[in-house]
Amino acid sequence: MLKSPHLLGIKDLDAESIDLIVKTAKEFKEVLNRPIKKVPSLRDVTIANVFFENSTRTRLSFELAEKRLSADTINFSASGSSVKKGETLLDTVNNILAMKVDMIVMRHASPGAPHYLSKHIKANIINAGDGTHEHPTQALLDTFSLREKLGDLAGKKIAIIGDILHSRVALSNIYALKKQGAQVRLCGPSTLIPKHIQSLGVEVSHDVKDTLTWCDAANVLRIQLERQQIKYFPSLREYAQFFGITRKMLDELPKEIVLMHPGPINRGVELSSDAADSPHSIILDQVENGVAVRMAVLYLLASRA
Amino acid sequence: MLKSPHLLGIKDLDAESIDLIVKTAKEFKEVLNRPIKKVPSLRDVTIANVFFENSTRTRLSFELAEKRLSADTINFSASGSSVKKGETLLDTVNNILAMKVDMIVMRHASPGAPHYLSKHIKANIINAGDGTHEHPTQALLDTFSLREKLGDLAGKKIAIIGDILHSRVALSNIYALKKQGAQVRLCGPSTLIPKHIQSLGVEVSHDVKDTLTWCDAANVLRIQLERQQIKYFPSLREYAQFFGITRKMLDELPKEIVLMHPGPINRGVELSSDAADSPHSIILDQVENGVAVRMAVLYLLASRA
Amino acid sequence: MLKSPHLLGIKDLDAESIDLIVKTAKEFKEVLNRPIKKVPSLRDVTIANVFFENSTRTRLSFELAEKRLSADTINFSASGSSVKKGETLLDTVNNILAMKVDMIVMRHASPGAPHYLSKHIKANIINAGDGTHEHPTQALLDTFSLREKLGDLAGKKIAIIGDILHSRVALSNIYALKKQGAQVRLCGPSTLIPKHIQSLGVEVSHDVKDTLTWCDAANVLRIQLERQQIKYFPSLREYAQFFGITRKMLDELPKEIVLMHPGPINRGVELSSDAADSPHSIILDQVENGVAVRMAVLYLLASRA
Repeated sequence: MLKSPHLLGIKDLDAESIDLIVKTAKEFKEVLNRPIKKVPSLRDVTIANVFFENSTRTRLSFELAEKRLSADTINFSASGSSVKKGETLLDTVNNILAMKVDMIVMRHASPGAPHYLSKHIKANIINAGDGTHEHPTQALLDTFSLREKLGDLAGKKIAIIGDILHSRVALSNIYALKKQGAQVRLCGPSTLIPKHIQSLGVEVSHDVKDTLTWCDAANVLRIQLERQQIKYFPSLREYAQFFGITRKMLDELPKEIVLMHPGPINRGVELSSDAADSPHSIILDQVENGVAVRMAVLYLLASRA
Repeated sequence: MLKSPHLLGIKDLDAESIDLIVKTAKEFKEVLNRPIKKVPSLRDVTIANVFFENSTRTRLSFELAEKRLSADTINFSASGSSVKKGETLLDTVNNILAMKVDMIVMRHASPGAPHYLSKHIKANIINAGDGTHEHPTQALLDTFSLREKLGDLAGKKIAIIGDILHSRVALSNIYALKKQGAQVRLCGPSTLIPKHIQSLGVEVSHDVKDTLTWCDAANVLRIQLERQQIKYFPSLREYAQFFGITRKMLDELPKEIVLMHPGPINRGVELSSDAADSPHSIILDQVENGVAVRMAVLYLLASRA
Repeated sequence: MLKSPHLLGIKDLDAESIDLIVKTAKEFKEVLNRPIKKVPSLRDVTIANVFFENSTRTRLSFELAEKRLSADTINFSASGSSVKKGETLLDTVNNILAMKVDMIVMRHASPGAPHYLSKHIKANIINAGDGTHEHPTQALLDTFSLREKLGDLAGKKIAIIGDILHSRVALSNIYALKKQGAQVRLCGPSTLIPKHIQSLGVEVSHDVKDTLTWCDAANVLRIQLERQQIKYFPSLREYAQFFGITRKMLDELPKEIVLMHPGPINRGVELSSDAADSPHSIILDQVENGVAVRMAVLYLLASRA
């Protein structure tokens, strides 16, 4: 059983809980590969997907996970809502809960928003991304996907390459990997690797070729075009030139590595098209695993009640 | 049985119909407090939620009511729709109805839009707010919530405090309360109380303390920041100073009163936070009751067929 | 059985497949007129409605068709999605498919977008409109509606009147009608009838009265206010004057003709209100038939698997 009624981040999740989620997700992945993909597990559970920031893949993935579990779902998006009328976050969520909603899946632009909520409400909260802070279900699906390929992650070498600064995927992954005993190396231009994150027991490199040679798996993050002004690098072309990963680079490595990306990919920037579509890549497996992992999280939180 | 196939407003609803809706909602509220909240009552009924204006709580509340009743639902919102292509309201709704839709829940910016529709189409129409005119299901859930606290409303003193001018909640509530024999007093700055509404047999006061002392329940409306230019009051701060209600004011009253608000609350304007969250407040009960009341309305209209 | 796993356009659909779709839709139309409108045919089939362009009637019609067939559905709209983050169309769709989606209903602004996709993915694709190119389910529902009125279309005279240039309905209808042996005449101002379309074996006329007298049915297209700058005609008023169809024109014809319009109607431009609402019009039948035709297409494509 999970210890907390919420999934706010990986920081406060212990290795045992990660194992439980991965094990449960494995069972759900089998369900998803059967002709009848639906299970009645969350019948009579009502889940609100509350997205204060836009999202495509995360929202669809949660929505499908909920439907496969037979939950009732309602969707709330901030655009055109009472949020614009000056309502507080807590009032908005309390209103939704008063309608007999059992679980809240929330994406919010402010780091810590789901943590704040969890102190004031009774329903289960699942953080679907809070600003550039955490995105725990992404880290869990990355862990699931890595374990499928590499088995136990203890001692394994995992590189996280790219825009660490603007990513919520990086922090959650670092926590998850360290808790499982993996070695973690961050790689990118120094302007995109914040100093504070280096205190979490990770290596830092600015040499992408050396990093690819070192690692068992490379989780390549997208350059968040919409979030940043890259100052060190004057252009995306320069980023691609110094840190972009091509199929040739992967083919020439001394050992096979696993290539991951949380999407959406900027083809030609952090990954060339032939790298993204190469046999090294498990990018679409990550998406498939995401539904199973989210089913596991929803199921385990609901069954605590 | 309800006399009309539509719920357009409270103006044309008789006291007997209000009683029937409240009685039916009471049964549905019991259902909503059971582990299995779903009933098959509206299986094979298709409902379109047609929102030409944005809404959070009303749309979610109707959607949940429909799901609890096992109806099939489709959602239409005006943004990015054929409305922008110059289609008439009647053509839009007739198109939706041609797809074998049985009921229309509609919010529209124009007062009277649902009344106009009801003269030209056969499906049941439920007005979910027409401009600053009526919002009948809000008044019905307010009535339901008041009766839970005060019992029969005949002779009870109910105050409606705040921005009467820009509110669709006020008018529907006045009709509902008068039909049930309650005494109604409006309270607010004179600029926010339209002259014509005073012909409906209500008292008017500009003294909020006196009004709180007078009443059994206070329904505090939000200052519609987005709809108005308050001319009499130069600032929200002044509104809060002269008409804002605090917990201290409620605690010091000679008798306990019921505090209501249709949401979203402007905390620190019409209500202080400690008032909104005080034991006097039934604001979240109103939200909970809203789903049961909307289930009752949908059920009663559908069962006329 | 349909020969292709996709419905990309009418161009590559043979007459036999059109017959099969019409015959199947006829059965579903009967279902839709029963009190219980739902059939379990697509239980355990997951359909994504992927709309990169806004749509009201087409999206609602597909959504209802899917629900009547008991499919699981998810909705994706381009606004606020990863498309804005620079993701390719193929990556977006592959991500959706990785979540175990079986069919894609897609509207896209670019002609050929669904054809491109069909070469790279395994799921069934239904084109719900690709720019000004094809809109095959509209042509199929028009065929269905025409056959209900006129029987076999071989030798029948069908006029398509209005803005051919900006319409995706025109091209799909021309293909469908020619394959069924109908005679097709296009009518409109010469600026709105592209030269290349005349090579498809259609007549062209600029005389609307003569065309109405000639035809057995007139499919009147809307003037796409939002897509065009009409250069030949300086004003909509002039369009209405020279090409607008009134009830009087229809009543005075030597024989009864069928009046169609794919909607949304610009009342007072291409059709007067009294024409649109006259007994000659089968405009709302078209909408009703649209759900049945889309059920047939979804059902036939799914049962190829």
